[in-house]
Amino acid sequence: MRALLIVAHGSRRPASNDEVRTLCEAVAARDKGLYDKVSCAFLELAEPSIPEGIEALIESGMRDITVVPYFLSAGRHVVEDIPAEVEKVVAPQGVSIRIAPYLGSSESMAELLLKQGRSTG
Amino acid sequence: MRALLIVAHGSRRPASNDEVRTLCEAVAARDKGLYDKVSCAFLELAEPSIPEGIEALIESGMRDITVVPYFLSAGRHVVEDIPAEVEKVVAPQGVSIRIAPYLGSSESMAELLLKQGRSTG
Repeated sequence: MRALLIVAHGSRRPASNDEVRTLCEAVAARDKGLYDKVSCAFLELAEPSIPEGIEALIESGMRDITVVPYFLSAGRHVVEDIPAEVEKVVAPQGVSIRIAPYLGSSESMAELLLKQGRSTG
Repeated sequence: MRALLIVAHGSRRPASNDEVRTLCEAVAARDKGLYDKVSCAFLELAEPSIPEGIEALIESGMRDITVVPYFLSAGRHVVEDIPAEVEKVVAPQGVSIRIAPYLGSSESMAELLLKQGRSTG
């Protein structure tokens, strides 16, 4: 059972956190059967936390969990804080947790920005 | 003469700002002739500022400028601060400046996150 956990920074502004939750639903809807579950978690200021998000996935039977940092740059949050949060989870035997490259490092980002430029809003 | 100005938040960490500059070069390289110039600017903590970035484009002959906010959520920066910075520029007659939807609102974002999840780093 595979899961994708989208990890965002978290905001004091509830609408920004809801935006991440909505995006998460869009990812689940667009996934073509690779994941059994797609959920989100926050580094700070919103819930669930990263360990809570991972533990909930494990409890619901997920055994192969990919964490995707929804971050634009390779700052301290991506390099240190997210790995440290992930490591707080004591994963049962047979559960694999990996951290995918952060969003901003995507080779498709340049194309996405060009697409946004052409977008009429 | 058309230009794309990618606007990022800006960071105290020089490497994060350089990451935006490198991305900007990647966008220029990938563009198939739609823009005569692709450059970047920062809301704070790095240079050029948004007005400086726009003015430099106007000075180099650009007449149709699209500003793309390289931001993930529709917070105060996107809704208030970036428009306010853009409005500081007194554009000469014949120069059009528009702000494209911010990156996080892209309909392709869900697909990009799925792609990151499949990425091996």
